[in-house]
Amino acid sequence: MSETKQPRVGIVMGSDSDLAVMEQAGVVLDELGVGYAITIASAHRAPDLLRAWIRKVEAQGIRVIIAGAGGAAHLAGVVASETLLPVIGVPLDSSSLHGWDALLATVQMPAGVPVATMAIGKAGAKNAGVLAVRILALQDDRLAKRLVEYRSKMAQDVEKRARELEERGGAKRTPGFRPASNHPS
Amino acid sequence: MSETKQPRVGIVMGSDSDLAVMEQAGVVLDELGVGYAITIASAHRAPDLLRAWIRKVEAQGIRVIIAGAGGAAHLAGVVASETLLPVIGVPLDSSSLHGWDALLATVQMPAGVPVATMAIGKAGAKNAGVLAVRILALQDDRLAKRLVEYRSKMAQDVEKRARELEERGGAKRTPGFRPASNHPS
Amino acid sequence: MSETKQPRVGIVMGSDSDLAVMEQAGVVLDELGVGYAITIASAHRAPDLLRAWIRKVEAQGIRVIIAGAGGAAHLAGVVASETLLPVIGVPLDSSSLHGWDALLATVQMPAGVPVATMAIGKAGAKNAGVLAVRILALQDDRLAKRLVEYRSKMAQDVEKRARELEERGGAKRTPGFRPASNHPS
Amino acid sequence: MSETKQPRVGIVMGSDSDLAVMEQAGVVLDELGVGYAITIASAHRAPDLLRAWIRKVEAQGIRVIIAGAGGAAHLAGVVASETLLPVIGVPLDSSSLHGWDALLATVQMPAGVPVATMAIGKAGAKNAGVLAVRILALQDDRLAKRLVEYRSKMAQDVEKRARELEERGGAKRTPGFRPASNHPS
Amino acid sequence: MSETKQPRVGIVMGSDSDLAVMEQAGVVLDELGVGYAITIASAHRAPDLLRAWIRKVEAQGIRVIIAGAGGAAHLAGVVASETLLPVIGVPLDSSSLHGWDALLATVQMPAGVPVATMAIGKAGAKNAGVLAVRILALQDDRLAKRLVEYRSKMAQDVEKRARELEERGGAKRTPGFRPASNHPS
Amino acid sequence: MSETKQPRVGIVMGSDSDLAVMEQAGVVLDELGVGYAITIASAHRAPDLLRAWIRKVEAQGIRVIIAGAGGAAHLAGVVASETLLPVIGVPLDSSSLHGWDALLATVQMPAGVPVATMAIGKAGAKNAGVLAVRILALQDDRLAKRLVEYRSKMAQDVEKRARELEERGGAKRTPGFRPASNHPS
Amino acid sequence: MSETKQPRVGIVMGSDSDLAVMEQAGVVLDELGVGYAITIASAHRAPDLLRAWIRKVEAQGIRVIIAGAGGAAHLAGVVASETLLPVIGVPLDSSSLHGWDALLATVQMPAGVPVATMAIGKAGAKNAGVLAVRILALQDDRLAKRLVEYRSKMAQDVEKRARELEERGGAKRTPGFRPASNHPS
Amino acid sequence: MSETKQPRVGIVMGSDSDLAVMEQAGVVLDELGVGYAITIASAHRAPDLLRAWIRKVEAQGIRVIIAGAGGAAHLAGVVASETLLPVIGVPLDSSSLHGWDALLATVQMPAGVPVATMAIGKAGAKNAGVLAVRILALQDDRLAKRLVEYRSKMAQDVEKRARELEERGGAKRTPGFRPASNHPS
Repeated sequence: MSETKQPRVGIVMGSDSDLAVMEQAGVVLDELGVGYAITIASAHRAPDLLRAWIRKVEAQGIRVIIAGAGGAAHLAGVVASETLLPVIGVPLDSSSLHGWDALLATVQMPAGVPVATMAIGKAGAKNAGVLAVRILALQDDRLAKRLVEYRSKMAQDVEKRARELEERGGAKRTPGFRPASNHPS
Repeated sequence: MSETKQPRVGIVMGSDSDLAVMEQAGVVLDELGVGYAITIASAHRAPDLLRAWIRKVEAQGIRVIIAGAGGAAHLAGVVASETLLPVIGVPLDSSSLHGWDALLATVQMPAGVPVATMAIGKAGAKNAGVLAVRILALQDDRLAKRLVEYRSKMAQDVEKRARELEERGGAKRTPGFRPASNHPS
Repeated sequence: MSETKQPRVGIVMGSDSDLAVMEQAGVVLDELGVGYAITIASAHRAPDLLRAWIRKVEAQGIRVIIAGAGGAAHLAGVVASETLLPVIGVPLDSSSLHGWDALLATVQMPAGVPVATMAIGKAGAKNAGVLAVRILALQDDRLAKRLVEYRSKMAQDVEKRARELEERGGAKRTPGFRPASNHPS
Repeated sequence: MSETKQPRVGIVMGSDSDLAVMEQAGVVLDELGVGYAITIASAHRAPDLLRAWIRKVEAQGIRVIIAGAGGAAHLAGVVASETLLPVIGVPLDSSSLHGWDALLATVQMPAGVPVATMAIGKAGAKNAGVLAVRILALQDDRLAKRLVEYRSKMAQDVEKRARELEERGGAKRTPGFRPASNHPS
Repeated sequence: MSETKQPRVGIVMGSDSDLAVMEQAGVVLDELGVGYAITIASAHRAPDLLRAWIRKVEAQGIRVIIAGAGGAAHLAGVVASETLLPVIGVPLDSSSLHGWDALLATVQMPAGVPVATMAIGKAGAKNAGVLAVRILALQDDRLAKRLVEYRSKMAQDVEKRARELEERGGAKRTPGFRPASNHPS
Repeated sequence: MSETKQPRVGIVMGSDSDLAVMEQAGVVLDELGVGYAITIASAHRAPDLLRAWIRKVEAQGIRVIIAGAGGAAHLAGVVASETLLPVIGVPLDSSSLHGWDALLATVQMPAGVPVATMAIGKAGAKNAGVLAVRILALQDDRLAKRLVEYRSKMAQDVEKRARELEERGGAKRTPGFRPASNHPS
Repeated sequence: MSETKQPRVGIVMGSDSDLAVMEQAGVVLDELGVGYAITIASAHRAPDLLRAWIRKVEAQGIRVIIAGAGGAAHLAGVVASETLLPVIGVPLDSSSLHGWDALLATVQMPAGVPVATMAIGKAGAKNAGVLAVRILALQDDRLAKRLVEYRSKMAQDVEKRARELEERGGAKRTPGFRPASNHPS
Repeated sequence: MSETKQPRVGIVMGSDSDLAVMEQAGVVLDELGVGYAITIASAHRAPDLLRAWIRKVEAQGIRVIIAGAGGAAHLAGVVASETLLPVIGVPLDSSSLHGWDALLATVQMPAGVPVATMAIGKAGAKNAGVLAVRILALQDDRLAKRLVEYRSKMAQDVEKRARELEERGGAKRTPGFRPASNHPS
């Protein structure tokens, strides 16, 4: 979190082992110049702390909360039941079910209490950051402008990679690309 | 609920549309002579009411809580995070995913906060009642005796059905049983 | 759509057979007093029309777009690639895979282009409406107040249903509730 | 197993390759001061031995049985059909289906014979220990007190980790956290 | 079961509600002239009766056992652990998981105790009958000959249906076949 | 099939119960003016007939084969192993697994023998017809032109439906659209 | 294959990369003293060779065929359509779907053409060997006796492992077994 | 791409991390002597570039387009909505869901816009190349001849591997093949 910036997004995750994934949301927010608060909380092991944190960040002016959890991932849903801010959920792949459990436990919320569910894992954590900025940009023209640039850079990046691949054509493919025989295996 | 009996089991469900399934737990408790309290609560739409109900039934001497919910079924997990009593979860088939979501959201709890998960739907609701009695019977010899009888009746019932089928053999099968041709379809 | 209100939400769906589900988003917006525009579009059969509609509603001041589709549900993702507004996706159960396909095709978006994915079907459509209002309420205090009331009514509704169930106790259960024998089937 | 303590929980698993997971149940029981007996058994390869073990531990005063197995995990269900004690099942990830098979084969028990199913793998094994203690604590005030402390330590642990993360903020994130470019990949 | 024939196949199912499906195995055995014994048993509710039935039919000269069950379908596996005869398992669709549970609980048997698993439901029950006959035909030339005829009739049946369809061509398709518009829906 | 047209597409299905779905391919081919031959065959019950039919239609000048089957749907794969024409597979929903089995058995072909797999059921059958025409249109300019018209009609159809919905707005929604209370259920 | 023994089982697999798994069937047959022929074949890449091999081993007196394949595993089904011998299918985990595809493509056979499906991977390959012996033992008393010994050794092995674990109790658990803190993670 | 050959196939993928898989399509095309153009594009991050590329390769005379993508794989579907050429989709295993998401998002296309879906990953990429050649061979006799040779080499390869395995029989199996004990694990 940039110390000097007023945090506008709260990021909460169920365990510090989730940090390597969830910090991707922070990366995006840093890139786009949005301050954020980040913490660890547990809907099951420490529900009172979670409620206290939600109250605190609401008072600080946080406008969007991002919650990431694995397994029977109740964290985002519990946050959404304790606040009226938009809540973004990131299902994490941290059990032997590879995120199927976290996805369903995050997305299948009952009517009345929505969680804006992202993809499982890092892509989802990044997109949580982008969605938070899309929401904040509705009332912040500088942010809206940065989103335009961000999208433009994404397109340029795709274009650059496409050009590189097209230029080297079939000549510089990955090592071991050309198999010795035609066995299709 | 037998009015005169001290309730020892609490049954909570997410919606009154779950009643037709969850009352199967009550049927079993009635059969085995265990009083219970039953209510509707919501981990997401009315979390304060849920916590208040848990506090109330704990004070009334409830020893086991059964919680049934569908979709991103957080109810049992949230109950298990608010009490130290044994909590039994019944996943319900109430979304287009046919209970897969409720099963995973109920069973894949993080370490430290267990939910004793049953089968999806009516069989699970019945078994929640039976498990509650197995737990209560550890300190109640009359209940233990009723469990022996209950098991014995189950076995007799299987035996009776087996005998009926064996007696009528191939002669009285279901209508339309004998197909006209041998097409295996 | 209330004619007199400036629409602030766009609702788009892949087929008119999706209307019975997707109009649930409209019900919520009506209840909470938010105007919306509603249309049918197809990412695959009429991509140019879809892009034209997005341009039009952006110009009209729409702030959030809700997109519902079934099968290989690309609609929300394509919308999210054509606008920088927040996009909410509702996966629909309209193939033999019961919405598993639509859920994955909506939620597993690549980094950079988020879709705020809701539950499959009606609960998801309603929640799309609620999430849109949570987003709009960030800059509209009247909406924020209505959300507080909405949540309060939800909790009261749960409380009322709980009281009714508790009052009638075991006496007025569903017809056929008390089985004749103890066969657990 | 503490030699001096009367075992009150039985832990049984299908293979010694399951030990690394199932001993997590023992860790929890040790921490909370509950003695246990541990063995290997097989519902399919040695059904007579399994029945003999159940008879033996019932006679020794065991009050709860924990059974862990992978694949078509029948172990917990078979135990539950041979005893009237509460039976806790832990599905293990030991086939190419990553525990989906063990989960369904453990949880989807028919009415009348419940298995209290835990999460797949280590989290489930730990929770089997915690649930056993929740059950035993119903008649043991010292255990109930230790559960309160256990829960309190869990909450303190979450709080400590949260504080650490909040203190180091964005400055000390995981190595390689800050990517060189903004390519969202 | 033809009264006069010595039964060579045993058919066992978990509940009389399974009869409509499992009797399809009997239909095939009747067609191919193989006697069979049929019963209801339960691996969980009446394990002693199941073992007694296995002992009895082994003594009667039964050579193959067919077992059908739904949910956490342990029946075939338990039979396979109690006999050394070939055991054929038929997973049944009798829970909200539509047979996924029964399939995995039947097929994923540990090494050493095989269950010859068939398709879920009626096709599987029929095939259980056919496989039993393929096994018995290894030592019964008349049966082998009937299998040749059975296969031949299947091929003739396919041929007849193909001819009928080819003859009526596009002219006599199902009612309402020709849609009024070209909307692909 | 238009009698007078030279068939250029072969449609084969596993059973006459598949006709109601598979004839959708024929509807599309009729609309676009492509003749076809249609039959029933079975990779398992009548493999010789299937091979004979493939040889026959190859000789008649068929250029594309469409194969639809359910369950362990081997039909398209077996066709693709017996011909070098492009083969299009349509997985059908005809078992309790709702087409998951047919989809995987059709699409997961080993390297060297491709099956162009379509969606499960009617949408897939229609698309098999459209794909066949896209392939044939590579050497038939009239067909290519009809495809342009077909696409254009699809877009017009979407546009017309969109206009109708937009015109009636919120006023003429489905019956019972406006719920009496705001209970989100 | 023991050169001196008349082969009574045929083992066929789709690729030589499957050998490490499928040879487990051979291990069991060697242990139980049953000769076998083993080969590679492909239902799709070389269907004529497959049919030729089936004809050859039938002529050699093979009584049971074991077929293992991954992906859209048609091999066992195609074998079952070309012979009337009992066919045992082993689904292999050789695609990114971890054997789900092979399982469904092997087990969901249409009525009339059964494949006796085993568990995915090595356990399934071993069990294919055991099932083949159970079938052959119906007409070979020496084999039947060896099966009794095999089962007995399995039970003794379980008993020995159980005794070892019980003896070392909690004292010699796996390294790192005792965690420093009680964090349940 | 062979510089001197007129490209007739376009290969497009969502990211350069997909190249190691997607170049397998190129390997097959090289082997069979078909020129191709290869690029990177994104349906979501750079939709305009994708449309421009489609227009360019259509103008260059490309006849078939192969599109590979992972996650919510919209790429092939979006290509199919922008061209009337046959489009072949390759689902990639690039998320924690192991390609289930990409498979469903590619194959479950709505009626009117087909994507010829291949297996997940390398086998699918190779088959995309083979299918493209099967399509092109309809109007190119030299290609048709090469396909015959390709199939013939595949069959010879299977035959050679089969002969090698049969010759070494049980004598030269994989290292560690013969286990010391008969424990079935």
